[in-house]
Amino acid sequence: MDRRDFIIKGALGGAGLLISGVTGKVFASSKGSKKPPYPYKPIDPAMIEKKAYDYYFKGHCAYGVFASILDTLKESVGGPYVGIPGELLEYGRGGINGWGTICGALNGAAAIIHLCCRDWKTVVDALYKWHNETPLPIYNPENPRKYKGALGSSISTSPICHISVMKWCEKTGFAYDSKARSERCARITADVAKKTVELLNAYYYGKLKAKTVPGIYKTKMECTTCHNMKVGG
Amino acid sequence: MDRRDFIIKGALGGAGLLISGVTGKVFASSKGSKKPPYPYKPIDPAMIEKKAYDYYFKGHCAYGVFASILDTLKESVGGPYVGIPGELLEYGRGGINGWGTICGALNGAAAIIHLCCRDWKTVVDALYKWHNETPLPIYNPENPRKYKGALGSSISTSPICHISVMKWCEKTGFAYDSKARSERCARITADVAKKTVELLNAYYYGKLKAKTVPGIYKTKMECTTCHNMKVGG
Repeated sequence: MDRRDFIIKGALGGAGLLISGVTGKVFASSKGSKKPPYPYKPIDPAMIEKKAYDYYFKGHCAYGVFASILDTLKESVGGPYVGIPGELLEYGRGGINGWGTICGALNGAAAIIHLCCRDWKTVVDALYKWHNETPLPIYNPENPRKYKGALGSSISTSPICHISVMKWCEKTGFAYDSKARSERCARITADVAKKTVELLNAYYYGKLKAKTVPGIYKTKMECTTCHNMKVGG
Repeated sequence: MDRRDFIIKGALGGAGLLISGVTGKVFASSKGSKKPPYPYKPIDPAMIEKKAYDYYFKGHCAYGVFASILDTLKESVGGPYVGIPGELLEYGRGGINGWGTICGALNGAAAIIHLCCRDWKTVVDALYKWHNETPLPIYNPENPRKYKGALGSSISTSPICHISVMKWCEKTGFAYDSKARSERCARITADVAKKTVELLNAYYYGKLKAKTVPGIYKTKMECTTCHNMKVGG
């Protein structure tokens, strides 16, 4: 076997990963992994929303967006994506282990966008702006997994998990710990994954006219969404 | 060369990664990467705080914590860590590309804790609780990179980036866009990396007496840190 160019079959779960002995440097940094960004190939938005919805029920919101797109790129591109576990972003669920900070779907989306896009900042800003201004969820699966009735929708005005959930609970009357709320988050996982690949497809193959969101004193979030809100405690 | 057990030298940047032809399945899932958690080996807290501080200046806060610990485990454990790029978490800087949401150091910490610890939830909660209650920064490097004067310290009361930064700016009088603020975030990157490995060492080799933080209506954060705060807008 030529040491300079050999195929490892079986070693990596039958993935048939091609590693080149010398040209392998293309995929390798000093620590054994290539620095992103990695190549991208177009992804069907209709396919990914269904896949991300299904993935939500395996590993929640952040995993749902990150792993559904990552696994798709493992199949279409392979290479440097193959060594990264989709489960890496599982910790993002519930705004990171229930802390209610960044929406897990948006955390997972930023992670995968950064992996496959040199101009990741523009794409992340476009996605977050869309998320904050759009009535969600949009996706309406043929066979809902947790709740089959009408869910309604709400505008989150914020990328923060517990603010987004609270806005939706207030609008629809569903409880935080209801099956409908879980269904809503699964569908938003689908929505965010779909929008993410639409933006990536537009960035690579179309004309993405995204504007970087200007910062307001230490953040890009709207101040008054949170701060002039009276709560007990 | 025995196909069942061979060493790839040079192919992965000279890392000398051992991949076993058949036993390689230990490190491989159906998508070419093993599911976490991965093995952990003890890390010297004094070493990691210095390394994370240095890494901050290569890729900011989230990268600083995540990549410094990841690279250490690539060297001591190898295996499934090797295919993961430390740069993966770069997107977390400034609460994710300047959005000011989750503190990047805490985002990166949760990512690496989840990778190497089955009981990652307990460790993440212990870390976040410590972060929110402890006057930071603590680390005082021999050769500060951005600002050499006294920095002061503040209690963030929150894992949210822009809240934590604002508390420190108010306490010390430094501006958000000052070199001192960048120095402060580099040192907090060091502090969070050090505390993370202290908790992981205690989890694996000592007696970690961490309590899961109870949730308060959709979040584990203190409501009044943010919500009864009047701001313009």
